[in-house]
This record gives sequence, structure tokens and C-alpha cells, in this order.
Amino acid sequence: MNKKLVLIFSCPDKKGIVAAVSKILFENDANIVESNQHSTKSVKNPHFYMRIVFELDSIFAEKNLANIKIKLNELRNIFAIEYELNDVFVRKNAAIFVSKEDHCLYELLWQTSSGDIFLNIACIFSNHKVLSSVANFYNVSFIYIPSDFNGLNNDEIIIRHMQERFILNEMAKYDIDFIILAKYMRVLSANFINSLNKKIINIHHSFLPSFPGAKPYHQAYEKGVKIIGATAHFVNEKLDDGPIIEQDVIRINHEDDAEGLKKKGKIIERMVLARAVKFFVEDRIILSGNKTIVFA
Amino acid sequence: MNKKLVLIFSCPDKKGIVAAVSKILFENDANIVESNQHSTKSVKNPHFYMRIVFELDSIFAEKNLANIKIKLNELRNIFAIEYELNDVFVRKNAAIFVSKEDHCLYELLWQTSSGDIFLNIACIFSNHKVLSSVANFYNVSFIYIPSDFNGLNNDEIIIRHMQERFILNEMAKYDIDFIILAKYMRVLSANFINSLNKKIINIHHSFLPSFPGAKPYHQAYEKGVKIIGATAHFVNEKLDDGPIIEQDVIRINHEDDAEGLKKKGKIIERMVLARAVKFFVEDRIILSGNKTIVFA
Amino acid sequence: MNKKLVLIFSCPDKKGIVAAVSKILFENDANIVESNQHSTKSVKNPHFYMRIVFELDSIFAEKNLANIKIKLNELRNIFAIEYELNDVFVRKNAAIFVSKEDHCLYELLWQTSSGDIFLNIACIFSNHKVLSSVANFYNVSFIYIPSDFNGLNNDEIIIRHMQERFILNEMAKYDIDFIILAKYMRVLSANFINSLNKKIINIHHSFLPSFPGAKPYHQAYEKGVKIIGATAHFVNEKLDDGPIIEQDVIRINHEDDAEGLKKKGKIIERMVLARAVKFFVEDRIILSGNKTIVFA
Amino acid sequence: MNKKLVLIFSCPDKKGIVAAVSKILFENDANIVESNQHSTKSVKNPHFYMRIVFELDSIFAEKNLANIKIKLNELRNIFAIEYELNDVFVRKNAAIFVSKEDHCLYELLWQTSSGDIFLNIACIFSNHKVLSSVANFYNVSFIYIPSDFNGLNNDEIIIRHMQERFILNEMAKYDIDFIILAKYMRVLSANFINSLNKKIINIHHSFLPSFPGAKPYHQAYEKGVKIIGATAHFVNEKLDDGPIIEQDVIRINHEDDAEGLKKKGKIIERMVLARAVKFFVEDRIILSGNKTIVFA
Repeated sequence: MNKKLVLIFSCPDKKGIVAAVSKILFENDANIVESNQHSTKSVKNPHFYMRIVFELDSIFAEKNLANIKIKLNELRNIFAIEYELNDVFVRKNAAIFVSKEDHCLYELLWQTSSGDIFLNIACIFSNHKVLSSVANFYNVSFIYIPSDFNGLNNDEIIIRHMQERFILNEMAKYDIDFIILAKYMRVLSANFINSLNKKIINIHHSFLPSFPGAKPYHQAYEKGVKIIGATAHFVNEKLDDGPIIEQDVIRINHEDDAEGLKKKGKIIERMVLARAVKFFVEDRIILSGNKTIVFA
Repeated sequence: MNKKLVLIFSCPDKKGIVAAVSKILFENDANIVESNQHSTKSVKNPHFYMRIVFELDSIFAEKNLANIKIKLNELRNIFAIEYELNDVFVRKNAAIFVSKEDHCLYELLWQTSSGDIFLNIACIFSNHKVLSSVANFYNVSFIYIPSDFNGLNNDEIIIRHMQERFILNEMAKYDIDFIILAKYMRVLSANFINSLNKKIINIHHSFLPSFPGAKPYHQAYEKGVKIIGATAHFVNEKLDDGPIIEQDVIRINHEDDAEGLKKKGKIIERMVLARAVKFFVEDRIILSGNKTIVFA
Repeated sequence: MNKKLVLIFSCPDKKGIVAAVSKILFENDANIVESNQHSTKSVKNPHFYMRIVFELDSIFAEKNLANIKIKLNELRNIFAIEYELNDVFVRKNAAIFVSKEDHCLYELLWQTSSGDIFLNIACIFSNHKVLSSVANFYNVSFIYIPSDFNGLNNDEIIIRHMQERFILNEMAKYDIDFIILAKYMRVLSANFINSLNKKIINIHHSFLPSFPGAKPYHQAYEKGVKIIGATAHFVNEKLDDGPIIEQDVIRINHEDDAEGLKKKGKIIERMVLARAVKFFVEDRIILSGNKTIVFA
Repeated sequence: MNKKLVLIFSCPDKKGIVAAVSKILFENDANIVESNQHSTKSVKNPHFYMRIVFELDSIFAEKNLANIKIKLNELRNIFAIEYELNDVFVRKNAAIFVSKEDHCLYELLWQTSSGDIFLNIACIFSNHKVLSSVANFYNVSFIYIPSDFNGLNNDEIIIRHMQERFILNEMAKYDIDFIILAKYMRVLSANFINSLNKKIINIHHSFLPSFPGAKPYHQAYEKGVKIIGATAHFVNEKLDDGPIIEQDVIRINHEDDAEGLKKKGKIIERMVLARAVKFFVEDRIILSGNKTIVFA
């Protein structure tokens, strides 16, 4: 009956939180194996963030876990904590969205199959068919998003609406926990994002906030920067503006034209996205306004 | 009569340039010890850039050098080259501008005194007196820029004008080759930049084009980036917009508030500025529109 | 008749080499598009290394190329140069050796199929069958190296000898230019290396010369290093001792046990190997004793 | 009566440690502001390491602190913990040892004076006089270690012995907490290390365990590595073999000869040493056999 849980929570900072949570875990025979905390002590209304991994290894593990949940719920009233408590041994289910480029998809498929990312890739959506063979090779469902809807005229907004309805319908067949945009290259409507009501992780091929929007490598080339970057972030309703999860950079030089930047950039795009996904599935990310706390 | 020269030049790209220059050097007994070239081959009007270091070690070194200059001037007509030919063993003279922060100034003084940067720091200008003792320790003239001019009212624009006139007057006493803004924290007027007519290297404490202008570390903190940077660039008339020479970054995390970013950032600010100055004094930088070619 | 060639050569350093080579290229209507040189000026018998990429775009390209070769051969007598002259548009053929681990193989297959590495993977040898499906997916011949030879007893040395004979026979069916050991995990005999007489690139999972031989991640963990690395090198007869081509590192911490190091290390292993292979197929590497000059 | 304390401790891993310590702190009105823990869970006899920063801000702070100490001492019997409890606002006193090279000394003096490292540099020992003016500029006592002892013959062992006795005598005048070898370039005797009985932090100019001992940059150049490093470690009786605290690396290329490596390496030497010292004065390092746990 060996169990391993990860608890992440945040609340207004107040004395005694750590002691209160530790006490609950101790009294229910939990063994804390990892622990990280952060307090935004420098601001007006300091907020507290914590991640704890603990084991329950007695024959009373199930009962202890139930008790822990009851006690944590009680803390909601005392400390106004918001928490998530997840089983470390249960994989999260992701739907991956791609377009034509394969490098980010490959990286996620490979790191998942090798066990480096503890994830279940439930399905792959794409507005192009070119990556279906990759999906097949890894035995993942591939869902083509049609752009031709019978009886409908060619109005772009209507087609996008139909596509998003199609996606929501298809996705309902899977028990999706979160979405990964692995170079999907299309903007999601605010309506779709709200209907979905799940975390969406996107990879943008620049070091945000530099070069948001289209063709960031061309922007970077024109500006003459000496280093380029990639940014994984949660999607919100504003383009390339959601909370940043992870970033990385690579040194370039004058030999690299925009196409050269694109080639070099692909390597950090896939690494940054893979790291962000790994942080997410291991419950290492806590939202803090439009920023993230990442217990890496 | 051993001489060592560095030649940097650029011109519209055309077949035969390398051969023509190599021939001149060979016929005048020069031995090429370093050579780098770049062509912007992908654009409409490709441009060519080259840096060559060569030695003249015969007893005819002076005569050969004179010949080389004559021949290079002839190439101006054939290939429309613009060139600079500098003696590797002659130090460039810099005037450094500082305000209150010492880290960039220290780094330049150390690396110059240790021989890592082959430079002569002719004088230090500052609108504060706090760093005069550092200048004294290194035996460099320290010139305080007054802000109080007798008989003048307190008009900010007039005072700045008077200060810039003061600086130009003082600087004329030294044989200055270029200016380094080592955290000067003040914007130079377009008029001053034009009167000066020398290269000005500035260090900006962000990864440009992200976070130009005031308080970049606060901007970075608010945005929640996971990596911060510093940028050394030539100054033009637009704020924080001139050709980028060098950049570097450092990983941060949620523990770092704006003050923490400032502390961590200081290390890359001084490293980036020192590298840019080193590139400049070793004639490794060629301008290319609003960008730089750096043969690092 | 547009041609693009890459010339790499080395010779004892002597005045006039660059001019002589440039003259040959110029007189045969070649346009130099990339050029790098290096001289080991600080040592007793200085040696010179150069890489030039040039285009021949006239209708006389073939004739010019033939002339260039004649002239370069003449330089052999004057400057004792050793050179290679390769067509930039012709892919080199590689045989990849693997064992059970897939990450380095995948990286090479991806980067080759995406065009980032300009290579032809002719065949994959392995002493295990597990990676045959990957080879199939990418339409590359997969050759299983048997370990059971009828009528032979179990003597290890005889079996290895039989295996190497088998490999040499099979490889003869392909026009192999060089070998990549992508985590082959077995030591090749000196006899085999000599019979093969081709460059062999190996990836070792440590920052050599630290931790050669078996289980480098365990060695690194026991030592308590704060950074681990990977090294791509040419294979010679001594274990993990050949000329280093490329290295990279990744920061670790106390949370990483030996298994954790292995996981983190895989990412740099595949990146370092891919970069080394890219350098090789683009003729950017020149041997210099037991070291390499890499014009990256 | 506002106090801020840092507690670091280690003990055999056992359920309830975190809860027990948290309980002590909570019951004495402490507010935990930072917390990190680590367990070597994968090994036979798992060990537990923890660092907690807490504030005592009531008018009973002194009394609470006394209680906390009593309770922590009781935990010694229960959990066999070894702990250190230090006042965050009290600077540690260091004696720095240098020889002729100034870069590491400068970095420590500057980062200390700028407040980036919270340290008191009590005195500087050197076997050369060249850096005394730097010490003077920063108002730090400079103690020259003589090598000429009247009436003694020239026996090297005797002289070293006399020097170490001299150092111990002089150092006794200061309340030294730890020693920093900032490029001291001499081996300390086992006898001296034992008599001193304080932590000694050394900077070695290689990426250990590669290139221990003399002239590591020459060793690196001969080997042809593509990256060089620096290592800060605690000194034990074996040369360049003590627990590693911090390392960093810098990319080099074939243009760098041994002298070039030395120049490039100086930058990482001083950065790595400064980071190690910062970790130490902030009580972020816990020894774990011949390794370190660093809660960076």
C-alpha cells in the first residue's frame, strides 16, 4: 500500500503554515522526501508557496491519505490555502497540438517513451496530415482537424469556430488534463480557451518579451541580437503574453541569417518545451498572478 | 623593425576581393596570422566584411607598410572598400563615463591593468565624486562634471548643455579615440553625440530589445522572465537602440526580487561591457547598418 | 554548372600560403564565401590550418575545378600541404553503431531527416535487435551483429573477432565514408580500427579526461562534481583518448543520483555527438596531432 | 528585537524530522522564510540534510531563541542531528591567502565592499608584497609571510614550518572563522591544516578531477579540451581532492594557447571562488562525506 503524493499550495503568508502542514503529515505517518517553499516577502501582501512530496508506506496509507485531505481542507479556513494533491505514480494526460514542424513533437514523444517525462500523450491534433506517421510509430491517436465543412461558406471566422468545436468534441473522448501547443502556429480564440478550461502550455520561438508574434527569428535577425531564445508559457487570452514557465538561449553570430537562426533555435525550442512539460507533470509549477513559481 | 597590423574592411561583395587583398599583402612581404571574413550572401545587395592580422618583420617593414596603404587606397576605386588599418601594438585611448555604480568601472580598470584588455584609460568623467578614489588608486585622471554653473538659472536643459560643453572642452585635452559609458545613467543629447563624432559604447542592463529605458530589472521582475541579460551597444541618437556588440544572460528564479536581479545582473553587465571593449580595441567589430559583425 | 567546394588543408606555417591559395582560386574564377585559418604560432614548428568554401558558377566550373586541383597538387611540393577538397552538395555516408540506448541514434536520424545535418545514414549496426524498428521507420538498413557463430566455442576473443569480420564484410556492401559510435558501448579492437581505416567518431558520457572508461556517471556521482559533461572524439587505439572534437556540460546538483545524472546527461550526449557529426560532414575539422582544429 | 537565524543540520534519515523541527520553531514563534531539504534516499543508510532560515520578531525573541537551542539539543539524542545555528546579520571573518595574482582577491574585496558577499575580510596573508597596496586601498590588514628566518639554514621544510608557525601566530590576533586560498599557489602541510582546525576554501584552476596539481592550463592545452573550468573546494590533506563546492566552465577554441587559457580562465576562477565564498557565509553548504550539499 505504498503511496507517494505531491502537494502544492499557496496562500497569504502567515506564521505557522509550515508547522501546521508538517504536523498534519507527521500525525498521519507521512514521510516528507522533498520540500520547497517561497515567500514573496518583499511585497505588500506577501504570499506563500510550497511544494511537498511525501510517502505513505504503512498499511494505513489509504486511511491516512483521507485524513490528510480532511485536515488540509480545514486549513482552507484558517490560512486560505489553495492546494492540489496528486499521486506521483499517476500520469497526466496531454493532448498535443502540432502543425507541420516535427521537432517539438519528436522531443516530447521521445522523452515520454524513454521515461524522462512521466506523461501520457493521449492524442495529437493537427491541421496538417504530415505528422500522422510519427504518431502511428509511437501508437498515439492522430486527429486531423478539417478545414472544409460541408455546406458552410468560406468565412474564416466560421471555419475557425467549426474547427474549435470539432476539437472540443474530439477531445471530450479523452480524459485530457492539459494541452501542449508544440508549434501549433495558430492563435486559439478566447472562447475556445474558456470552454476548454484547462492549462495550455505553448512554446514561442523567441526570448519573450522580445519578438512576440509572427516570425520572431526574422525579427531577431533584423535587430542583430547576439543571442536568441525560446520561451514556454501558459496561454492566456493575449498573444504570447501568459505566465512564463521556462526559457533558454543560444549564442549566435553574424554567419546566421534568419534561416540559420531557425535551425539553431529548433534545438532550444524543443528543450525548453520539454522542460516546461516535465515541470508541469511533476507539479513543480504554481501560478502567482501573471508569473510562475517553479520549484525546479 | 617587427610590426603587427590589423586591417578591417567592408565593401559590396564581389569576386576577387580576397585574392586582391592577399596579393597586396604577399607582394609586400606580409605574413597573415589571423583572417576572418563574412558575406551577407543571402540578401539583395550582398556586402563583404573582412579582418586580417598580419606581420611585417623584414627590415623593409616601414616601406612595405607604406606600399600596402597605397595599394589599399587603390582598391577603394575598384571594390569601393572602406578600411581601417591599425597598429596592433598601439593602445586606443578611452574616456570612461560613470555615475555612482562602480562595478563596470572596476572591471575595466582591472582588466586593463592586468593586460587582458589592451587599452589606455585616459580619463574618467563623472557627475558624482564618489568614484574619484578608485580613479586615484589606478592613477587615472578623474574629472567631476559640475551641475552648478554660476549666473545660470536652474533650467535643466541649459545645465545639461553647459555640462556637455564642459565635457567636450575637458575631453579635448586628451587624445580620445572612443567613449565608454560604464553605467553613466544619463542620456546624451544628439547634439553632443554629433559634436563628439566618436564611437560610444554603452552597457544597458537588460537583454535588448527587451526592457529598454529606465529600471530594466524592475521590468524584468514584473514580467517574470526566467533569465536576465545585459547588452553592450554603440550609442546612436535613439535610446538603447544602437548596434548591439555583445550580450550575455544569467539564469534567475523566483527567489530573486528586483533587488536580487540587480545584484546578479551586475556580474554580467561588467563582463559584457569588458568583452565589448576588448572586441573594439582589438578591431574585431565592423558596422553593418544598424548591426555589427564581430569577429570574436 | 554551379558548384560549391570546401577545401581544408594544413602545412608547416610559411609566408605566402594564403596568397598562393587565394591566387589559384582567383585565377580559376572561384568566389570565396567562407574562410578560416589558424596558425600554432606559439610553438617551435608552427603549423598552418585553413578551411575555404568557394563557388564556381561559370560555365567553365568543371574545367576550373580540374585546374584548381592541378595547382593545389603543385603546392604540395612548395608548401608540403595536405589537403582535402570536397563537393559541398555531396552527402557523406555514415555507418552508425548502436547498442540498446536510442537517444543518440534518434538525434542523428532526426537532424539528418530535417536537413540540419547534411548526411546519408547508410546503415545501422547493432549487437541488439531492439532499435531495428526505429531504423525501419527511417528506412535505414539495420544489421544485427550476431554473437552466436555455429561450430565455434564460446571463447570471447574468437567471438569478437568473428563479429568484427562480420561487420567488415557487411560494411563493404555500402560505400561508407566514416563511422559513428552512437553509444555502442563496446571497445573496438586495434586490428578492426586498422582494417577499417576510416574516421570513427565516438561519444563518451563524461567531460574527458575526467571519468574515462566504464560507468562515468557513477564516477561523477561519487566524486561530487557540480557539472557533468559529454565528449565527442575520434577513436584511436587507446580507450577514450582520441582527439577531442566537441564537448558540452550541464549543471547538476545534490538531488541527482547516478541515475539522475544519466538522464540529464543523455541530452548533452546527443547534442554533442550531433554537433561533432555536423562539424565532420561540413569538413570543419582538421587533425593536429592528438588534437583537433575545429572551424565551427 | 527582530532576529533572523539560519539553521543547517544533518542526521540519519528518519520519519518525523521535519515535523519535529517545524514544531520547535512554531512553538517558539519563529516564522520560516526559507527552507530546503535533501535526503540521499537511494543509498543504504540514507542521510538527511536541511537548511532553514527563520525570523524571530516578537519581544521574546531572545528567550525564544534560547528555547529553540534547548529543544534542538534534545533532538540530538532522538535523531542524532548535527546542527549549526547562526545569526544571519553577523558577518563571518575570513583570512585570505594570496600570492602574486590579484584577480581572485580583487573579486572578493569588491563583492564584499559592494555588499554582494556578506563577509568581513579580517586580514590578507601573502608570501609576496605586491598586493599590499590593494589591501591598503580596501583598509584590510596585509601580513607578509617572511621566508628568511634569522639563524636558520635554508632547509625548505624548516622554512615552511617556520612560515606556518608564523601564520598561526599572526592569525590568532584575529577572530578568524574560515580561510580562503585566493590563488595562494602553495601546498599547506597536513600539520598546519590540523592545527588550524577551520574550513579552508581553495580555488583550483581546472575542472576537477581533470588536471589536478601544477599548470592545469598547460595540461588542458596539451589535451586539446574544448572547454576549461575552475573548481572551488574545501581543502583536505590530499592535493586538489577535497569536497567540491562549486564549478564553472568556459568554452575555448584552437586560437587559445596555454597563455590564452590562463587569461580566459581567470574570469571563471574569480567567479567560482566568489560564489563558493558566498554559499559558505550564507550557510548554504553542508558536508556529506567527501561531497557537499549546496542549497544554492
